[in-house]
Order: sequence, then structure tokens, then C-alpha cells
Amino acid sequence: MSEPAWIKNSILARRGSAGKKSGSHHSLSEAKQGKFHYVYGPYAEPVLEIEPGDSISVETLDAFGGALKSERDKPSKKLQFPYLNPQSGPISVKGAEKGDCLAVFIKGVETRGAQPAGTTCLVPEFGGLVSTSATAMLHSPLPERVKKMRIDKAGVHWNEKIVLPYEPFIGTIGVSPEIEAISSLQPDYHGGNMDLPDIGPGAILYLPVHTKGALLYLGDCHATQGDGELCGVAVEQAATVTARVDLIKGWSFAWPRLETESFIMTIGSARPLEDAARIAYRELIRWMVADYGFEELDAYLFLTQAGRIRLGNMVDPKYTIGASVLKKYVCA
Amino acid sequence: MSEPAWIKNSILARRGSAGKKSGSHHSLSEAKQGKFHYVYGPYAEPVLEIEPGDSISVETLDAFGGALKSERDKPSKKLQFPYLNPQSGPISVKGAEKGDCLAVFIKGVETRGAQPAGTTCLVPEFGGLVSTSATAMLHSPLPERVKKMRIDKAGVHWNEKIVLPYEPFIGTIGVSPEIEAISSLQPDYHGGNMDLPDIGPGAILYLPVHTKGALLYLGDCHATQGDGELCGVAVEQAATVTARVDLIKGWSFAWPRLETESFIMTIGSARPLEDAARIAYRELIRWMVADYGFEELDAYLFLTQAGRIRLGNMVDPKYTIGASVLKKYVCA
Amino acid sequence: MSEPAWIKNSILARRGSAGKKSGSHHSLSEAKQGKFHYVYGPYAEPVLEIEPGDSISVETLDAFGGALKSERDKPSKKLQFPYLNPQSGPISVKGAEKGDCLAVFIKGVETRGAQPAGTTCLVPEFGGLVSTSATAMLHSPLPERVKKMRIDKAGVHWNEKIVLPYEPFIGTIGVSPEIEAISSLQPDYHGGNMDLPDIGPGAILYLPVHTKGALLYLGDCHATQGDGELCGVAVEQAATVTARVDLIKGWSFAWPRLETESFIMTIGSARPLEDAARIAYRELIRWMVADYGFEELDAYLFLTQAGRIRLGNMVDPKYTIGASVLKKYVCA
Amino acid sequence: MSEPAWIKNSILARRGSAGKKSGSHHSLSEAKQGKFHYVYGPYAEPVLEIEPGDSISVETLDAFGGALKSERDKPSKKLQFPYLNPQSGPISVKGAEKGDCLAVFIKGVETRGAQPAGTTCLVPEFGGLVSTSATAMLHSPLPERVKKMRIDKAGVHWNEKIVLPYEPFIGTIGVSPEIEAISSLQPDYHGGNMDLPDIGPGAILYLPVHTKGALLYLGDCHATQGDGELCGVAVEQAATVTARVDLIKGWSFAWPRLETESFIMTIGSARPLEDAARIAYRELIRWMVADYGFEELDAYLFLTQAGRIRLGNMVDPKYTIGASVLKKYVCA
Repeated sequence: MSEPAWIKNSILARRGSAGKKSGSHHSLSEAKQGKFHYVYGPYAEPVLEIEPGDSISVETLDAFGGALKSERDKPSKKLQFPYLNPQSGPISVKGAEKGDCLAVFIKGVETRGAQPAGTTCLVPEFGGLVSTSATAMLHSPLPERVKKMRIDKAGVHWNEKIVLPYEPFIGTIGVSPEIEAISSLQPDYHGGNMDLPDIGPGAILYLPVHTKGALLYLGDCHATQGDGELCGVAVEQAATVTARVDLIKGWSFAWPRLETESFIMTIGSARPLEDAARIAYRELIRWMVADYGFEELDAYLFLTQAGRIRLGNMVDPKYTIGASVLKKYVCA
Repeated sequence: MSEPAWIKNSILARRGSAGKKSGSHHSLSEAKQGKFHYVYGPYAEPVLEIEPGDSISVETLDAFGGALKSERDKPSKKLQFPYLNPQSGPISVKGAEKGDCLAVFIKGVETRGAQPAGTTCLVPEFGGLVSTSATAMLHSPLPERVKKMRIDKAGVHWNEKIVLPYEPFIGTIGVSPEIEAISSLQPDYHGGNMDLPDIGPGAILYLPVHTKGALLYLGDCHATQGDGELCGVAVEQAATVTARVDLIKGWSFAWPRLETESFIMTIGSARPLEDAARIAYRELIRWMVADYGFEELDAYLFLTQAGRIRLGNMVDPKYTIGASVLKKYVCA
Repeated sequence: MSEPAWIKNSILARRGSAGKKSGSHHSLSEAKQGKFHYVYGPYAEPVLEIEPGDSISVETLDAFGGALKSERDKPSKKLQFPYLNPQSGPISVKGAEKGDCLAVFIKGVETRGAQPAGTTCLVPEFGGLVSTSATAMLHSPLPERVKKMRIDKAGVHWNEKIVLPYEPFIGTIGVSPEIEAISSLQPDYHGGNMDLPDIGPGAILYLPVHTKGALLYLGDCHATQGDGELCGVAVEQAATVTARVDLIKGWSFAWPRLETESFIMTIGSARPLEDAARIAYRELIRWMVADYGFEELDAYLFLTQAGRIRLGNMVDPKYTIGASVLKKYVCA
Repeated sequence: MSEPAWIKNSILARRGSAGKKSGSHHSLSEAKQGKFHYVYGPYAEPVLEIEPGDSISVETLDAFGGALKSERDKPSKKLQFPYLNPQSGPISVKGAEKGDCLAVFIKGVETRGAQPAGTTCLVPEFGGLVSTSATAMLHSPLPERVKKMRIDKAGVHWNEKIVLPYEPFIGTIGVSPEIEAISSLQPDYHGGNMDLPDIGPGAILYLPVHTKGALLYLGDCHATQGDGELCGVAVEQAATVTARVDLIKGWSFAWPRLETESFIMTIGSARPLEDAARIAYRELIRWMVADYGFEELDAYLFLTQAGRIRLGNMVDPKYTIGASVLKKYVCA
């Protein structure tokens, strides 16, 4: 799989330890993974160790570990909290230390497994328009429902009439915190369950490293998703993720960042939702100041006119927002 | 100004009292307006009465009533709360009653006045990343700053290097509540200060009518704006708004709606921000159920995969979000 | 009705125009009131004009205007939004101008009308643990329910076994904004529907004046209420309110304040709830700095150890919190 | 230390495995503890194993591990995130399993260490009225400040004039989650950094058990604290905690509960703050339904009139609220 031309001018290429050099390729199959993980933390043994610049192919499970096999399955029967959202990894990256940045160039997210390969559903006490364990109300849950969909070259077959484009991404990806073990259901400063559609093929994700080896985890791929992941469950799929991983020594910041051909983005996760937006925008200002010569208040005024917001999720323990600005304005 | 072809198939054309017929044209100049308004309410006399199907040209002031004339002006000196965000109108529409819907097809938003015609600024205790009267903190305000910009055919001239596209819209527009008089700084169920970039040329805004004559107000045009209107002040401009106004009898709903060639959108305003998103998405589901044959939970599942969120403002007394879905999926 | 001794040392006594002098007494009966009001604004004619220092007795309606007469009544049938929470007034106070403070010493809140005089109920789409118009969800409303209770010397007769103490207060009280007409269902900087139990007999409420005559409104008395007014409806009652009203010239601040024998309190209303707490605590710090010799950060540190929070409501369009500190610490 | 009489009728006494029987006493000194912990999780070895009914004395450190020794110390220099809020434990309780409840009767919290034993301070980017890592703003931090105070029989000596009562409690206490390791700075369903003043001598805390042995942690004692812990730092002290620990087999619920002589309380932690209140009140309703014969909607209506809210903290990663009701109403 060849890389797009812009990658040569990316931050990854300019600042990565391996930079433009390609390294070895590693496969992390479901079998090799063995036991999947339900927390992002430093307490699990790495399942794979790679060098900066190496590429990986990872077989991920869907968010339910495949437990929802038919539309007759009941989520409340088949799913067992907290053993949800199984993660592949952790993958240790040689030389990575607290204070560095892990760069993950996502090359592909390919559906795997039998058809219908896509699953969405209504889970009791979970979702953006229902009473939950946190926004606790007295209503009875909505009825449970599971919907399975074919996913193929043509797209995501919602029903006889509607086919949505296949716009896959990695729902959950991140590195280990320093001492915490954070549920794979939660997004935070370490990445995690951000459910942000920009984290897909063609993007480079930059993650601040908190512990030796960085300890990369990933899983929870989506075939497509609307802004906010409204009911809490995208078109979930088992997938094979291909990526190139590099290390930027000494580049440290507070929250995940992302680069595509056209924009740079910062990612914040918090409740209430405005705090996620505040985090993302403040990080973007800090980035513009640190690396692109902006004066702070001028960056603030400029993003007021040219900033863009992408709502990742409004359903997980923290809500996720990406704030972006076009590279043609800030990186010229 | 001819209308785009899709308008013939719009809800406005299909359900409007005047429908595809064109009515008279009315000009509401600054002079004719005389006194501008700072609340949306039923206590002001209409400055103009029109028939459904009539067109209007309205000369609006900028959000500061033109008080910020130079970059040396201090907002805290020149602006006098609550006399901010002056509104043109109210325009009474014959036959409009509570329970109807006012349809406003926005045809143009043209800059008027001397150059530099665009103004943005930092106002103490106002903005998305500062202590405000509501998110009250102990910090001293950021320094005040006023920035003036040329706006012309080429776009919005941010500085020597950056020219942003001219993507104008109406920051504040709505109808009168039944008995309340709501500050023109606030968005709510009646419309008002939504600061949502989708409310621009080429869009039809649908507003639920609460009082006899509907009493349309508008003002606060922006030459361009980023998602969230981060510092609270877009590229503000005095402008001439042209629009065609129609009435849909007996179409009633809770929050403003919008239609473009490609999508339908519902608009919610609330704090915290997730409540604005909840309102918008629930309204969109209700619309899909009422008019497009969706079953409620299927609409919920579908928007989870295909819904789109636009952040209007995260700075006004209520935050505003638009939730949309492509017409090709729901209106086919 | 004699006044408690501490009143002589209150801010009211020390700074009021009338101060310790008693003025005339005015009765505002239901008949004299005639039409009740559903907004707090400057657009209604005063029903009574008084001098600073005068006393008033006001016959208020309950929040439903008496429409819920039996436990078989359905709120959704009997209540007609926005004609809820009828208010007595406005009462104009001679000499009151923007920049002044209105002081209302509440002397009594006495149940009136036939037994059972107390009403609570479940209203669809309203309450702290249900889907509402703002925290919009897909659940069906809870069942409606009306509960009537006897209120007498012994207290509020919840049922055969439980009698709650009679701890009455004024749920909604405030002055007119300068140009807005704010729904009587909403609390804000002008007072309004705060639903804060501290605003009862023995307390002095201080309200910043925004318009000539101040224009005092009040209504919505509660026989008792828990913190937060959880389901949205306290033990509502028609009541006779007695109060003495004074004017403090040139005392201006942003949000309502309150004084009792033992503490001073500031009152903030906002969403999310933490913003109500922030407003209240910041106002309390500002008060301690302005009038009691505290240095700002020392006041911040001190309230961290000695501040007290009372949750008024978590159900109205804005939530209300009172922050207080003992007078023995700050006023000595 | 003899126990108060009401304990004999407490839930602990009636349902505990040991019940009214007293067990052995265990001391967990600072030396015996050795390494303190900064996460609540199942990955640390128990430092002590006890039987249900046993008593413990635990020497806790203050929230800074004693690092702030003088008023000239700068928190930003002396404190090293995430190594804040050191915890004693974990203490394993024999027989405790997921689905059980751990009951901790707090008998004493005694100041230890040299005078001045109390510390409060302003920490950059932390506190209720400042820009933080989550409510991210562009303001510069407030000045740092450390204040040391004598704590003795007379109380907490704030300054020459003000002495606050000694009202100590345990700021951080809880059990291990099943698989997560949660920062000791955060409160959640497992307990943790709740900073709720009710968790002090004379109260019984009930914690749902998630893992074998329960794994009790505690620390962060406060000599006194205002509602909300406004600046984020109470009067912090090293202390000796004495408690009796029992186990209630098969009593399972979602969030911590508390019992005193006069009331029962449920404790919720979340952002925004209204969600903490919703959690707490819903849990209280569920408790009243499960154990005290209330019908759900009647409990909802009743708490509307008689519920009480205590704000623990409005500064930690989640905010904490306790909702309570008098035992005389519900347990009779």
C-alpha cells in the first residue's frame, strides 16, 4: 500500500525518529493477541514490540467482541459490563518515553469476518437521547434492538434503499496512562474511546507518551458513523487496521492531535460538551502559538472565524470533540 | 435575483401559502427602521407589514450598531449593555397565527457601509475561552482588542497573507415569543442569536409562529464565522439582507428548522452544549417520523450513522447546534 | 407583627432610605390585582405604588393559578403553557432607579384558601429526573399525578404517617429587567423563579434595580420544599405574603443577595448547575471584598473552608444555588 | 472508644456479617504502609488483611504527602502530578466478593504531625473559580499561595480572629474497581476523592464491592471544609483514622451510601453537577423503594419536599453530591 504524497511533508515525516524511512512489518492476528484488554493501562504485558517506523496490521474485534451474532440477540443478555470494547495490544515502541509523542499514520481499516459484518444496536441505559447511569432518570429503558448490515465495496447497506458510504475509522485508540488503568469505554487525554470519525485512513494521530514503550492499544472499528454517535453504537465491525508507527522525541502536549492532508486538529474529551470544545480549541491555539508563529490572542480571534468543530461522541463517559483549522492558513 | 431550481421542490414551495408565486417587494432601509430593537417580543409596533410570498430587502446594522469605528476603540467604553445587537423589524406577516410556520428563504446577505467593513474584537467577560458572567471565575479579563477588515469580492482580508472566503449569514433572526421579550443576545425556541453559519443565502429557515403576524426580526450579519464563534465575535458587518417570506398554515413544531438543496436541519439552543445537541437531534427524529415515514427508533439508529452536527455558537446565553441529515436519505 | 431584634442591625436598617422607620401599609388583594402576570418586565402597568419603608400584604395565587382542584385533574389538561406561575404586581417603589437596590424583608407567608391547600404533582416533560424540553430524550413521560395535602398549624400532612414542618417561602420574586420580559418560570439576575427555600419569613432579599420604580413581582409560595425541588413542583399554595420594602440608593450588584440573622447569601441561576454555584460564590467573594475588608484570594480560600451551598432548584430553565457564609465570620 | 447507641440499630448492625460483634484491632502505621498509592485499583498488593468486624487505625498522609512544609513553598514546584493524594491501603477484607457491600463505621479522624498541622493553598489550573485542564481558558493562573494553620482542641485557627470548628472527615475513601485503576484525585462509583464532609466520625459508609477482598483505600483527611471545596484544597491534614469495617453479603447497589443517626444518604459523582445530583437522588429513590416500602413515584414526590442536598466538591475530575432524607420519615 503506497502512501499519499502529502505524507512526505507531514509532521511525522519531518520530525519522526524514522521519518521517511520504512521499517519492518508486524502482524498482530486475533490468535496472536489471545486475551484482549478492557483497560488502557501500564499493568498488561506488551503483546508486540516494534521499532519506530515499523508498520503493523492488527486484527481487531468489534466493540462487542462478536457477541451480537443475530438481530434476535439481546444486548442486555449478551454483554457483560465492564468486559466491553475489547482492545488489541498493548504494542510497545522501542525508545518511547514520557515526554515523547507517538505518531500513528493510519493506512487502512478493512472489514473482516462473515457477512452481515456490521452491527448497531440499542443498549439499555446507554445513548445520547436516553436516561443513563450518569444522566440518571426514572424512565424505563427504550426497547432493545440489534441491527445487522452487509458491508461491501458499495458501502454500508442500511436497508433496501439506503446505502451509506464506507467511511471507516478507529473508534478506540490510544496509549497507556502513567499509572491509571482507564476503561476502554472512556476517552481522555490518552486517547481511548474517542469515536471521532477523523481518526481513519489517511490521517496521522499524534499521542503524547506517558510511560515507557508508549503501549499502544486499539480496537472498536466503525464502518461509518454520524456526528455524536447518537445512540452510542456506530456500525461496529471487526476489522484489520494497517498503520505505520513512528516516534517524535521530546514533543509533548496534553491531548491527542491529528493531521490530514488539509487540516490539523486537536482532540478534547470532557463533560459537559462545551468543556470538550474548550479543551480542543485551547490546545489548537497552543499548537498554533508553539509551532506556527501565531500570537495567542490573534490565534483566538482567527479560530473564531476559521475554526471547525467535529463532534465525535456525545455518549461515552466523556464526550469528544475535534477542533481543526486548514493547514493552508496556519502552516504556510 | 433568480432563485435556484431546487426551491421549486422545497417545503416552502410545496406547502407555503404563496408557494411558487412571487409577491411584492419591500425595502426596509435604516432610515425607515428608525429605532432598532434589543429584544424579541410582542411589545413593539411592526415597522412593516407584508403578505405571504412577498420579498424584503433589509438594511441591518452590525452587532455593535456601528459603535466600533476603529481598532483603537475599546469595547468596554463604546458598548452599553443591554443595548447590543440591534435588530431590524418587527415585520408583520398577514394571516400568521400561533400554530403556523414562517418560512424565510434567504437570497442574499451583502456587505454595506464603508471599508474596512468587517469588525471582530475581544469583549471583556464574553467568549468561549474566558471567564464570563455565567461561567464566573476570578481571573482578570483578557486585554481588549478590536480588529477591522476589508471585505470585498475576493473575500475577508484577515491580514496580508490570509483571505477567508466570504461566507455570509444572518447571526440573529427569529420571530416574537408569545409573551416574553427575549434579549437579542440570546437564541432560543424563537430563533434569535443562533449564530449558525447555515442560516445564509440559499437556505430556507422555518420558524414556528407564536403570535399574530409572526413579527419577524433580524440583524447581526456575519461575513464569515468559524464553528462555535469562539471569542464571541464573528466578522461582524452591516449588511443588506434579501429574502422571500412565506407562511405555512398549521405547521407547528418546537424549534427552528432549515432546508437547503442537500439537507434538512433542526436547530437547538441550550446549556450545557449537549442539551443543544439533544434538542436538535430529537427534533430531527420527530421531523423524520412526522413527515418522512421513519419509525422513531429506526430514525434514532439511522442518525447515529448519518447525522451531522454543526456548532453555531458556544458563547451566547444559550449555545446553538444544528443537526442535519441528507435529503437523499430521508426525503426520497 | 413585630420584627426580630437583629433587623435593627441589618443592612436594610443601616442603609435603607427609610431604614428603621416604618411606613404605610398596603394590601394587594386578589381582587385588586385583577389580571396576574406571566412575565417579569417593564411592559405592565404597576398595580400599586409604595414609598420606601412601606409594608405590603399580597394575596398570591399558587403556581397553577388554582387550576389543579382535585387529585383527578390532569396537569396536561388543566395547565396551558406559557400561562403558568401567575405573579402579583408589579409594585412600583418611589424613587427607585437603575443602580439602586430594593430590600424586601419577608415577614410572613401564610396559607390561604380552602383545604387541602397544598398541591404537588408530576407534569409531563418537567422535573429533575425526567426527559424535558431541554434535556430532550426519547422516553415517554412518566404518568401524571396530582397530590393534595392539608396544611395547618401542625404542618404539611403528607399522609397519615408523615407530617412535614411548615417551612414556607416565596418561590418566585424579583424586579423587572430593563428591557426584557422574562417568563415567570425562569430565575435569573432579576430574581424570578428561584425556588430557594431561604427566601422565606425572617430573611431580607436584596434585588438590584434595573428600571424606574423597580417593579416588584412575586408569587408561587411553597409550604415546604426539598433541596432542588426534585420533580419540579413543591407543596404549592396560595398564600398571603407580608413584607416591608425599602430602597438602598446607589447599591448595585449583579445577582440577588439575602441576609438572615446568621448568614449572608448570594444567589446565582444558570445551567449547568456548576455555573450557578460559580456565580453565587464569585458574588459572595465580591461582597466580602467590597463591604467586609477581605482580600479577594483570602476570601476564596476562606469560603473553601466555610462556605455553604443551598440548592434551590434543579428543574427550572435555569438552576438556582445560594452560597452563604456566617455573619460571625465576615461581618464582625 | 465506645460506639454511640444508634449504631445498634444501624444497617451495619442488622445486616453486617459481624454485626454487633467486635473483632480484632489492626494498626496501619505510615511505616507499615511504606509505599502509598495514587490509584484505586486491583493491581496493588494488600498491605493488610482483616476479618469483617475488625477495627483499624490508619495513619494517613495529607493530600500533598507532606510536601508543602511552609507558606513559602510553591505548589507548582513541590507537587508532581499524578503523584498527588497518597492513599493508605489497600486493606483486604476476608470473604468480600463482587456483589457484597463493605460497611465502614468511621469512629475518629485525629490530626497528627507537627503544628501548624493544617494546609490549604491555591494550585495553578485547579479550583472552582479558575481555568482548569477541563474548563480550559486562556487566562493566566491566579498567584500561588500556601496557608498553614494550627489545628487543636479549640478548632482550626484560620487567623487571629477566626477559629473554625474542627469538623474532620475523610476526603478520599473507597474500594477497588473490578479492572480499572482510577486516579486517587477522582471520585466515582467506587468512592474515591468525594470530598464530602458527611464522611466523618459518626457516619457509616456503605461501598459496593467490585473485586475479591474489596480492597479498601483511604487518605486525604480534612480538618474542615466548606461546601464544594471551592478552591480545591480544604484544610488538609495528616490524620489517624479509626474505623470498624464489616461486610454485608449480597447487598449490591451502584453508588456509595451513607448512614448517620438521623439520615440516610446516597452519593453521586459526575459532571456536569446536575448529573451528580440526578445520580444521588435516583439512588435514594431506589433505596427507598427497595428497602423502605416506597412506591417509586411517591418517593420522587416526597424527596421533592423533603430531600436534602450536600455539595461535596465542585473541583475534582467529577463533582460530588450527597442526597439525603431523614430516617424518621423513611425508616419508621
